Amino acid sequence: MNAADLTVATLGPCRIDSPLKPLIDARKTTEHYVDEFDRVLFHDTLGDVTATGLGPADLPGFEPAGPRRSIFFDPAKLRVGIVTCGGLCPGINDVIRGLVMELSFHYGVQRIYGFRNGYQGFIPRYGHDVMDLTPELVSRIAEDGGTLLGTSRGSQDPDEIVDCLERLNLGVLFVIGGDGTLRGAMSIAERVRERGGRIAVVGIPKTIDNDIPYIDQSFGFQTAFAEATKSIRAAHVEAKASPHGVGLVKLMGRHSGFIACYAALAEPDANYVLIPEVPFALDGPGGFLAHLARRVRDRDHAVIVVAEGAGQDLVPAEEAGLDASGNKKLHDIGIFLRKRITDHFAAEGLELNLKYIDPSYAIRSVEANPFDSVYCIRLAQNAVHAAMAGRTELVIGRWRGRYVHIPMPLAVSRRNRVCPDGDLWLSVLEATGQPLTFA
Amino acid sequence: MNAADLTVATLGPCRIDSPLKPLIDARKTTEHYVDEFDRVLFHDTLGDVTATGLGPADLPGFEPAGPRRSIFFDPAKLRVGIVTCGGLCPGINDVIRGLVMELSFHYGVQRIYGFRNGYQGFIPRYGHDVMDLTPELVSRIAEDGGTLLGTSRGSQDPDEIVDCLERLNLGVLFVIGGDGTLRGAMSIAERVRERGGRIAVVGIPKTIDNDIPYIDQSFGFQTAFAEATKSIRAAHVEAKASPHGVGLVKLMGRHSGFIACYAALAEPDANYVLIPEVPFALDGPGGFLAHLARRVRDRDHAVIVVAEGAGQDLVPAEEAGLDASGNKKLHDIGIFLRKRITDHFAAEGLELNLKYIDPSYAIRSVEANPFDSVYCIRLAQNAVHAAMAGRTELVIGRWRGRYVHIPMPLAVSRRNRVCPDGDLWLSVLEATGQPLTFA
Amino acid sequence: MNAADLTVATLGPCRIDSPLKPLIDARKTTEHYVDEFDRVLFHDTLGDVTATGLGPADLPGFEPAGPRRSIFFDPAKLRVGIVTCGGLCPGINDVIRGLVMELSFHYGVQRIYGFRNGYQGFIPRYGHDVMDLTPELVSRIAEDGGTLLGTSRGSQDPDEIVDCLERLNLGVLFVIGGDGTLRGAMSIAERVRERGGRIAVVGIPKTIDNDIPYIDQSFGFQTAFAEATKSIRAAHVEAKASPHGVGLVKLMGRHSGFIACYAALAEPDANYVLIPEVPFALDGPGGFLAHLARRVRDRDHAVIVVAEGAGQDLVPAEEAGLDASGNKKLHDIGIFLRKRITDHFAAEGLELNLKYIDPSYAIRSVEANPFDSVYCIRLAQNAVHAAMAGRTELVIGRWRGRYVHIPMPLAVSRRNRVCPDGDLWLSVLEATGQPLTFA
Amino acid sequence: MNAADLTVATLGPCRIDSPLKPLIDARKTTEHYVDEFDRVLFHDTLGDVTATGLGPADLPGFEPAGPRRSIFFDPAKLRVGIVTCGGLCPGINDVIRGLVMELSFHYGVQRIYGFRNGYQGFIPRYGHDVMDLTPELVSRIAEDGGTLLGTSRGSQDPDEIVDCLERLNLGVLFVIGGDGTLRGAMSIAERVRERGGRIAVVGIPKTIDNDIPYIDQSFGFQTAFAEATKSIRAAHVEAKASPHGVGLVKLMGRHSGFIACYAALAEPDANYVLIPEVPFALDGPGGFLAHLARRVRDRDHAVIVVAEGAGQDLVPAEEAGLDASGNKKLHDIGIFLRKRITDHFAAEGLELNLKYIDPSYAIRSVEANPFDSVYCIRLAQNAVHAAMAGRTELVIGRWRGRYVHIPMPLAVSRRNRVCPDGDLWLSVLEATGQPLTFA
Repeated sequence: MNAADLTVATLGPCRIDSPLKPLIDARKTTEHYVDEFDRVLFHDTLGDVTATGLGPADLPGFEPAGPRRSIFFDPAKLRVGIVTCGGLCPGINDVIRGLVMELSFHYGVQRIYGFRNGYQGFIPRYGHDVMDLTPELVSRIAEDGGTLLGTSRGSQDPDEIVDCLERLNLGVLFVIGGDGTLRGAMSIAERVRERGGRIAVVGIPKTIDNDIPYIDQSFGFQTAFAEATKSIRAAHVEAKASPHGVGLVKLMGRHSGFIACYAALAEPDANYVLIPEVPFALDGPGGFLAHLARRVRDRDHAVIVVAEGAGQDLVPAEEAGLDASGNKKLHDIGIFLRKRITDHFAAEGLELNLKYIDPSYAIRSVEANPFDSVYCIRLAQNAVHAAMAGRTELVIGRWRGRYVHIPMPLAVSRRNRVCPDGDLWLSVLEATGQPLTFA
Repeated sequence: MNAADLTVATLGPCRIDSPLKPLIDARKTTEHYVDEFDRVLFHDTLGDVTATGLGPADLPGFEPAGPRRSIFFDPAKLRVGIVTCGGLCPGINDVIRGLVMELSFHYGVQRIYGFRNGYQGFIPRYGHDVMDLTPELVSRIAEDGGTLLGTSRGSQDPDEIVDCLERLNLGVLFVIGGDGTLRGAMSIAERVRERGGRIAVVGIPKTIDNDIPYIDQSFGFQTAFAEATKSIRAAHVEAKASPHGVGLVKLMGRHSGFIACYAALAEPDANYVLIPEVPFALDGPGGFLAHLARRVRDRDHAVIVVAEGAGQDLVPAEEAGLDASGNKKLHDIGIFLRKRITDHFAAEGLELNLKYIDPSYAIRSVEANPFDSVYCIRLAQNAVHAAMAGRTELVIGRWRGRYVHIPMPLAVSRRNRVCPDGDLWLSVLEATGQPLTFA
Repeated sequence: MNAADLTVATLGPCRIDSPLKPLIDARKTTEHYVDEFDRVLFHDTLGDVTATGLGPADLPGFEPAGPRRSIFFDPAKLRVGIVTCGGLCPGINDVIRGLVMELSFHYGVQRIYGFRNGYQGFIPRYGHDVMDLTPELVSRIAEDGGTLLGTSRGSQDPDEIVDCLERLNLGVLFVIGGDGTLRGAMSIAERVRERGGRIAVVGIPKTIDNDIPYIDQSFGFQTAFAEATKSIRAAHVEAKASPHGVGLVKLMGRHSGFIACYAALAEPDANYVLIPEVPFALDGPGGFLAHLARRVRDRDHAVIVVAEGAGQDLVPAEEAGLDASGNKKLHDIGIFLRKRITDHFAAEGLELNLKYIDPSYAIRSVEANPFDSVYCIRLAQNAVHAAMAGRTELVIGRWRGRYVHIPMPLAVSRRNRVCPDGDLWLSVLEATGQPLTFA
Repeated sequence: MNAADLTVATLGPCRIDSPLKPLIDARKTTEHYVDEFDRVLFHDTLGDVTATGLGPADLPGFEPAGPRRSIFFDPAKLRVGIVTCGGLCPGINDVIRGLVMELSFHYGVQRIYGFRNGYQGFIPRYGHDVMDLTPELVSRIAEDGGTLLGTSRGSQDPDEIVDCLERLNLGVLFVIGGDGTLRGAMSIAERVRERGGRIAVVGIPKTIDNDIPYIDQSFGFQTAFAEATKSIRAAHVEAKASPHGVGLVKLMGRHSGFIACYAALAEPDANYVLIPEVPFALDGPGGFLAHLARRVRDRDHAVIVVAEGAGQDLVPAEEAGLDASGNKKLHDIGIFLRKRITDHFAAEGLELNLKYIDPSYAIRSVEANPFDSVYCIRLAQNAVHAAMAGRTELVIGRWRGRYVHIPMPLAVSRRNRVCPDGDLWLSVLEATGQPLTFA
């Protein structure tokens, strides 16, 4: 590609200050935004860059995913395991189906085991049977949400897991799960290495919140935010139907507000979006509550979308609890906001008809939409290709549209988050009309 | 990013020939596939490359889309036009809405005109009124499919169009349309230049077939293939319900079979997918008809998905017609296949219960799904940013996930097509189980 | 119930002629309409009428459906058959599932056979295997459209069928099908009687057109017209998007226009509804074509819904064909109308952008909606109750809300049709605004 | 109709006790069930009965709804009001639209007022503006859930309301609401009578719970239970995905369990349905908790559907609260059950993964499905016909399929409830497999 062909025509120099200038002044190139004087590279592979003689051979790059001409495992002898961990997410069954189909029909692998209920499935004392996974068994499972294998939260002793893998003589383990699950997978791979084993551990990252980095969008995310728009719509209908109607929708998003942002853009009835990445004050003249009360007085209704991880600093410590493992639980920001809004309106002597909607299970349990179905199939196919070639301790990602191998340590090194200075959040501010900050 | 962090662990050298080797032997890095020994660049901006000191400053790159700190037009005085051309596609109303909202609320533009029924809308003798587009008028149009402005096919005299633009004193024209429409827009921009005018002509590429290059996926494409899965499902149900049942579904795709491929992957009931990019023979022992007859004899049913542009070489010339402009029309491959299958089964003395489904209008007229809604808003916002900054003769694209400015000549220089050697087609072959070739 | 409690208050005598008078002047009480001075009986059972001492014991009445305290067949020994015939209709699988569940779990029947592909399934030379139907096999089939058993059109020799029933020692045969199928079932029952057999033949009437009498609405009808609204919507979007846009939708309805009427009421975008029960002229100043042309000239678009059996008198005889059995086929009124409209507009020198939509397979192949699912279960349960009590040659119907036994001869004695003087058609005229008659 | 034509053939006398006998032994003819030796009357109008000479002229009957040849009000001078009260229900906008369209296009009424937010809209101190309702304004409102007019709960002083009606010189008031609203309407009509006025007060009964008698099914009910099936599905997916997974769904139904019953029949994943009409014990060896624990131990998962009015006797008094009017609020049986189940499993040392789903707002805010759309139009049309003919203090109902006038006192005289001995509940017991009683 010739650089000249990429040059855009312009009518002349820009001499007028943009009304958007204050919103973007601090920007520089990040993963969320490209500075206006920067350029987006046309070539996205090292081969192309070096072939054109333009660049050096040492630009950092990901190993591409995909089938290899030579493979590590003998398919006729290989035994494979699959496990699904953590919360539900649309598309898990599509991934399971894709793995089994690719292993069976393309590589001729004949022994595929499904472990039940997450990492519990490897531990004998839980008493979960191992399932034989065949093309017949999985052929229609993608029509159902959930996971054929069941799932559970929490880790198990990696030594016990590796004992089980060795007992069954597995060569490959596919792990479908999120941040914690992948850390567990790394421990398993480490134990395998320590014991001198040859078991490939390959992850397909699952996160309905879209908070795993380097994978474009996580599978199930599009289905999830599409479902979430229905709750925003319901909140809007309810809010419009009563005097001083307020619809409050709590959506998934412990650390990252992507679902809240995308759903609010797709269903432009939300007037406020609150996410973990953007702190806000409740009280005071510039706080959220005062703004909300003004809006309800003026416009008679309002719709609020709040990600579950938003505003955690606002909830008094004593209202939080501990989960089974003794860890501090996330405060329920939805219940908390409902109470604070109710109290504020009562204090102001304002009528309030607040409807609170928490659609979490309804969202995460649906089947994948057609886009996510295709995406899951292709992630699964690439996971199989990687494992057959002996790759291990990696997850399959899609980097800027290309399927790649991402080392597990990189995938859990940080979280993907909404950039408060980026275009996504800017679009949300435009769509809602909410102020830049509540302070 | 350190290259070492991107290195994937491996269990050992690959010494076994893959069963997939024959399918991928000819591959090298293309836009559809990265060779296994190549790498996908981690950095995708020139700024990042040069900042790390790894690369030169002359790698070719696209200008990023997005808001500029300084702009070319004075919003208070600017008059803007919008026109939609060609066939329907989910999301057109979302784009119109997004343009009007961004222009009005962020830049303060107050005069936005909608031209009716494509390029006809500029030509006085058609008698179409110009619409005043306001936020109130467009606020809910995205709930409807189609286009608020109406559309038409075919070009109009660019001089007459520029006469109209000058008469209305327009500074910006947004053109929503496909290949032919963008060529028309280039003619308009050329005339503007020749007359020494200052009118920015900015395109938002519309192609339900996803055949415009450099834009990742065209808006409406995901909605379209999701709708198309319903027809494949219906064909499957019908085929299974009768002895020797055959479901034949014709989908959009004049030059590119993306809808057929993605729909068939998402709804894995299709047994054959036929696309323009992969020629096939009907007759002979290795031809499609013989294969189909064998399958129906063995399995009692079959589902065929054919893109409208597939197999055009097979249809006898005399069966094609001419359209209103005197051009050769595309043969109707669906009707043709139905006849050839019916004749073949009759000649073989086989019972046949064939059901033919052509869902074209049902697909293209639906409203955009939530993903496409968000995509359309962001394309529209970036189109406004580009125009306000005085950019012209460009379309807004998303290159490897980044919104960029693509010169119009580049956007119409070739078509995006399914690569017969790439992963998408390979996945389709896997999902259908059809042979590599009918010959 | 006291008659006084049913008396409605009134403000005074009605002395003004209603604008609707011309539309209803000819009315008298029918199944479609109750004359204004008539009354709808409060009691709907003979027991209630005689218990109140108000009526005689000889008012004609249907035998109620439902479980009996004593039954005819010994469940432990009983063998049951199920067959599905004719075209697809949403809900067939729900009926099959309901039959198997009720027979198995409530009565303890253990041998249930499914015959494949309609009446062909009884005839050895077709070679269709008999299926063993168990609760496990059918538990999720209602999630799919179509029929698990397959279907076919046309009759088979009743003696060969009864041979098969005797060979398998069946005591009950459930037949799911329409008018022709039920006539076939009557022949089977007759042969059984002639041979002195004891086989109960019980029908569950299937007609997507809703044209079987005495059954309120046929199962699948609500699902069908709900699906049909999508095509009307698509036709509307297409028609509005082009200058002189016309959307033409052909819907099911060979003898009765119920689907067309209900769909047009539910999606009020249709401007014309044409049904078999209401003849219309095409030509002349009062004909349909002239009216359509005027409307398109004035309003720029129009949407037409035509039932497949409408206007059969208008199609020239030579355009009809014969089907496999040598019977005259229904003319394709959709294709015919498309041609006549196109010719008329051409003759008048009017532009025309006509989009033709025929969604037949897409409608009939979908799964039942929740209402139809429940309805199918309850029809199936009542069919089992009837058969277990030794009832034969009947179908299960719902008469004015009550499930009843309807003798088969009555069910095929006439067709349920839209009354041109009744409220349904009047509502359609109001919703479309079309004239009372095209003549 | 000849009685002989209604006689069903039978294979012989029934001499075997049915396995269902214990379930139905106590039955006699009611509105829910017809005794097996009773008959369902063929004729449902008094005219038909007397015309056939079979019956007397004094059988009680409803006045049929429908257009009258003569009317009471002069359309040219008539002013009409519409008000919507109480909770949301799918279809309210369809009714509003239907009223306005029928009044405008068929009768030529030109002044139609919409009162905002229920009965508040008549009371000046609330400050709600009156809306002018025109065909243009309402033409597309049926695409949205909710109510264009807004709503509120609670009554207002009938004298103040009649003051408002007189001030605006209204001749007709349409009231869309439930039990309480209709009682309010009766007070209004009473005051009108006392003042010697001539204002027709006509109700369209709204109750998402389907608990108003004599109206077959209330509008929106089918849409509501169809939506509810999605929550049952979600609960099932969640329950199956975890060890000892329990899905608990609370559905609407304060006094009547129709939504719970129909939804559970349509989506046969529910294992327990609890409704207000059927009391149950929680504790003891035959109680619900012990049964649930056994099932979860044996089958590893369970899905419970509970209507909000079920088990109110079980909740300790101190846990209930008072609403704004000082009335005892309904206990939240969902939250209560969740706690009791959790405690019981903890006491038994059983793992429990309980997911609680309360979809109330998501159900009631959706738009009407096509069936309910048509039903709402026809209710609205008949309401207009009744009012134009001077009928007052009535609601429009559908009695055994016929649209009729029901005096308001009758409509509020009792509730429509699920009969614990009837076929509906029997079907639910069959579908869930739950025991006849928890005691």
